Amino acid sequence: MDAEIVTAGVLVIGDEILSGRTKDKNIGFIADYLTQLGIDLKEVRIVADDEAAIVEAVNSMRARWTYLFTTGGIGPTHDDITADSIAAAFGVSIDHDPRAVALLTDHYKAGELNEARMRMARIPDGADLIKNKVSKAPGFRLGNVHVMAGVPSVMQAMMDAVAPSLKSNVQLLSVTIDTGLGEGIVAGPLRDAQNTYPDVVIGSYPYIRGGLFATKLVLRCRDEDKLEMARQEIETMLVSLKGQIQTQA
Amino acid sequence: MDAEIVTAGVLVIGDEILSGRTKDKNIGFIADYLTQLGIDLKEVRIVADDEAAIVEAVNSMRARWTYLFTTGGIGPTHDDITADSIAAAFGVSIDHDPRAVALLTDHYKAGELNEARMRMARIPDGADLIKNKVSKAPGFRLGNVHVMAGVPSVMQAMMDAVAPSLKSNVQLLSVTIDTGLGEGIVAGPLRDAQNTYPDVVIGSYPYIRGGLFATKLVLRCRDEDKLEMARQEIETMLVSLKGQIQTQA
Repeated sequence: MDAEIVTAGVLVIGDEILSGRTKDKNIGFIADYLTQLGIDLKEVRIVADDEAAIVEAVNSMRARWTYLFTTGGIGPTHDDITADSIAAAFGVSIDHDPRAVALLTDHYKAGELNEARMRMARIPDGADLIKNKVSKAPGFRLGNVHVMAGVPSVMQAMMDAVAPSLKSNVQLLSVTIDTGLGEGIVAGPLRDAQNTYPDVVIGSYPYIRGGLFATKLVLRCRDEDKLEMARQEIETMLVSLKGQIQTQA
Repeated sequence: MDAEIVTAGVLVIGDEILSGRTKDKNIGFIADYLTQLGIDLKEVRIVADDEAAIVEAVNSMRARWTYLFTTGGIGPTHDDITADSIAAAFGVSIDHDPRAVALLTDHYKAGELNEARMRMARIPDGADLIKNKVSKAPGFRLGNVHVMAGVPSVMQAMMDAVAPSLKSNVQLLSVTIDTGLGEGIVAGPLRDAQNTYPDVVIGSYPYIRGGLFATKLVLRCRDEDKLEMARQEIETMLVSLKGQIQTQA
């Protein structure tokens, strides 16, 4: 059933993220979105507005994962070089695409569709357009690479347009357990539980609340029965641990 | 003066970021921090809690940039495999480090320093410790790689501990101009300005406010005079553009 696990990478393109000027909001959104779709996000990269850096990341990531999603760098300004860089990565030509030109011609009033805006109709040869219901200028898909805008509302509209075409795994199920205990207390028994249930991925996420260290566990599995067995064993283990602590106090 | 530009990469390690369960707060913090220090952040990657993925990213990024900063995976649980992965990446051994053991022995009450917590004293051979004033368990520096915690408050304390040891560029200066115009309107003249001032990096950042498209420009340069000349030319260009729009209306 898990013969092929559908995987994804995300490539964020933009100097403004690396300088700290803009705080990325797209990675978290896409991570949630892919998890909901049952696609495993395996790698994220952020690179500068630099053709060599973009080409290298695109070619490395598209070879490795089922899908690659890029955000940023498809607007009208001189620093928007993503479309040209994708064409270079695939070794295909790029020019004004009649379908994209038609979308922009429809959208802008006479005289508004200047040379800069026409840049947004530059689409690599062989690509399909990705619809943008917010501001019309399209993204595109070439091979397994989905090229989307950086503005979050536009990117989100493009994800919605892309989603129906994506293959999906059986959804990864998850349960969260808030242990109420520090990570150092649960770590030992948790390792035993992980060894007993190798198909259940057990993540341990420490946090600080009111100055106290505590730990949430997230159990993930594609099989509902195994997930439930692991959950029960860990709940039992936690009851036992808390009993020991009370006995000590 | 710019003979050597000091650069950095950031590697975020953790399944919880890729699943969307945890929203990363460290990338934006480190990006701001390095910009303030005058260090150019060039690349960010996020990888899973997977030794092969960590080793590959560490070796690729440490060879490429002046500094590499990692966050995540140095706690006490079975999924905290960063220290062992760094040792593997460098091909050095790893064991309980007497300096780290002493820090933990000081911090925990008798009987609390169990086997799991002792994992946090595993430090690759040849590394220096990075102080953690929040929860004591140290990070470490090996070569140009700085290994830090994933919990934001702990990571931030570790950045403060590391900062004095870092080389820095002359600080990159920046000015922001809110054009009040759509990106497609400013894009053409902006390209001319970029050609006139190649040493000034001109970024164009569209946003939507009240349903209208607008654009902020950020000009960045290490030379104050060039930055000011570019700023004046662009301000003059914007006054002229707005005049043309009013004439049309």
